[in-house]
Amino acid sequence: MELIRAVDWSDDGAGVRILDQRALPASEAYRDLRTIDEVYEAIVTLAVRGAPAIGIAAAMGVTLALDGQETERLGARMKVGLAASRLRAARPTAVNLSWALQRMSSVAGQYRGDPRDLRGALTAEATLIRDEDRAMCRSIGERGATLIPDGARVLTHCNTGALATGGLGTALAAVYVAAQQGKRVEVYANETRPLLQGSRLTAWELERAGIPVTVLVDGAAASLMRDGKVDLCLVGADRIAVNGDVANKIGTYPLAIVAAHHGIPFYVAAPSSTFDPATPSGTEVGGLIEQRNADEVRCGFGRLTAPADAQVYNPAFDVTPAALITAIVSDRAVHRPPYRFDRAAGPPGEEATS
Amino acid sequence: MELIRAVDWSDDGAGVRILDQRALPASEAYRDLRTIDEVYEAIVTLAVRGAPAIGIAAAMGVTLALDGQETERLGARMKVGLAASRLRAARPTAVNLSWALQRMSSVAGQYRGDPRDLRGALTAEATLIRDEDRAMCRSIGERGATLIPDGARVLTHCNTGALATGGLGTALAAVYVAAQQGKRVEVYANETRPLLQGSRLTAWELERAGIPVTVLVDGAAASLMRDGKVDLCLVGADRIAVNGDVANKIGTYPLAIVAAHHGIPFYVAAPSSTFDPATPSGTEVGGLIEQRNADEVRCGFGRLTAPADAQVYNPAFDVTPAALITAIVSDRAVHRPPYRFDRAAGPPGEEATS
Repeated sequence: MELIRAVDWSDDGAGVRILDQRALPASEAYRDLRTIDEVYEAIVTLAVRGAPAIGIAAAMGVTLALDGQETERLGARMKVGLAASRLRAARPTAVNLSWALQRMSSVAGQYRGDPRDLRGALTAEATLIRDEDRAMCRSIGERGATLIPDGARVLTHCNTGALATGGLGTALAAVYVAAQQGKRVEVYANETRPLLQGSRLTAWELERAGIPVTVLVDGAAASLMRDGKVDLCLVGADRIAVNGDVANKIGTYPLAIVAAHHGIPFYVAAPSSTFDPATPSGTEVGGLIEQRNADEVRCGFGRLTAPADAQVYNPAFDVTPAALITAIVSDRAVHRPPYRFDRAAGPPGEEATS
Repeated sequence: MELIRAVDWSDDGAGVRILDQRALPASEAYRDLRTIDEVYEAIVTLAVRGAPAIGIAAAMGVTLALDGQETERLGARMKVGLAASRLRAARPTAVNLSWALQRMSSVAGQYRGDPRDLRGALTAEATLIRDEDRAMCRSIGERGATLIPDGARVLTHCNTGALATGGLGTALAAVYVAAQQGKRVEVYANETRPLLQGSRLTAWELERAGIPVTVLVDGAAASLMRDGKVDLCLVGADRIAVNGDVANKIGTYPLAIVAAHHGIPFYVAAPSSTFDPATPSGTEVGGLIEQRNADEVRCGFGRLTAPADAQVYNPAFDVTPAALITAIVSDRAVHRPPYRFDRAAGPPGEEATS
């Protein structure tokens, strides 16, 4: 199974290669980014998307601030600081982006060696961030695959695959690992309005990996379950509260209700960085959910599909209560109810529950 | 409250005036159809849509076969028969279309008067079909309005409004009548993928009628309910089985599950012609649900939004079990569970349940 790489070093190691996600699903176009401005523009325009992938692209992008000919350590550090500030502004609310850039800035700030070698030190750190992300994906995938029986028909929502990360993906990694283990697995992908990440991205990357996939409108998932064609649901998470309530892409909550109605297991899989010990429950998350641009609903794909001035309710996320979730998979463990994620995340491999 | 007329006679009475629904929501364009071919083309291209509206347009269209100068009764009848055959072929599965054309053919077949006056007799029959439809809409609306309290926030799916009929609409007629009665009423319209009748049509006609309306993606309805913003759900029906199971636009069934989960009343409103005494339950309907064109999902917005060869699951309808339905409104009565619709429909005003 050949998997795409959403973000990596370019072949000559002197740039950042991204799969341009704006061109999907029509074409698979890779671009080598060679300047800070090009990386900034790729993040702003969603050519690269998905929290982990953005973090990796930005970390790699910072290295482009230096050319390895620097003679002054302070000047080199300032270039890195400016690059990090610029890239952080590309998507100010992206936590992974901010976190990855913080790591890069720390390396520069603590650097005491030859200024000409700072670029090498930054390159090593960005490579480490990429490799940690790959390991995280693999770990989620291996734990998640234990929940996928041979012959399973998996219903998923949004994109949690290789396109969003430096590796196999988050929730969808479980499907890839199950397939790599020789299990027969088939996926139903909710198209996921308003931005259609399911039909544009998930269907594309599964098809490319040779895993059978069928696309459906979000409102058709219930019929599919009623027809006995779904063995389990598997979705990602943007934030997981202490009590196991999960904030994820809009449309996740009704899917969980419908799955419970049909007695179908509903699994969430996400990096342990998604667990938030500062958020007691979904109630606190609910108040933070932003309304996205109304035009995503009124004219999302180049055509006016509602009155141009129509009022729109367009929340980015919804909250699925823990009671509807059969298990939560992280890179550290498969968690079963009752959930209690009240310890900050430790190093990978360590159990996150108390 | 000024309501649009989706289909009616043209001002000079010599043609069929339709609101061209292909131009919505961008513009409100009326067209006067003056030949059988123009009526045929309008039905095929969905310029006119909605079962009752199609029936009326076709009935009116048949009159265009004659010019009132006919001298031979048999020749005039043949022209009517040819016109009816042609129009029936425009949408072979539309029951209302076939039924309305049958009525027109019967008038011609039984006609014994001056051939020059056959056109007038046909015009009277088409006008009667239109007026019966208007009365049916009004009757559903008045019965349905009893379920809508002052200040109600109503969530609906697809388009069941004036655009689909010759009058106020079917389910949405209840909203119009409630507003005419002076009740404050606000509507949330599911956009209704794949064909977006909710955002394109329902939002447009409610806005035009001055009724507050908010559009949302189908996957956001559950969040809206959880936020306490929905007082009741109101949807139409394509077919109602004897036991009260309801076949309707895809996405209705999950909405009913989600409404039940939140303890929100779920009402169905439809003409009594929709009740099918030959169908014992939704199980029999389920087997008949056709898969629609995959490109509605793969490139429904004028742009490729899934791999061009992606497999698609795209059923036209789903089945909502009677147990999830709080009441079923027809032009004859408000029916409460347990449902038992085992008598053929009688004349309007008569109770349809046993």
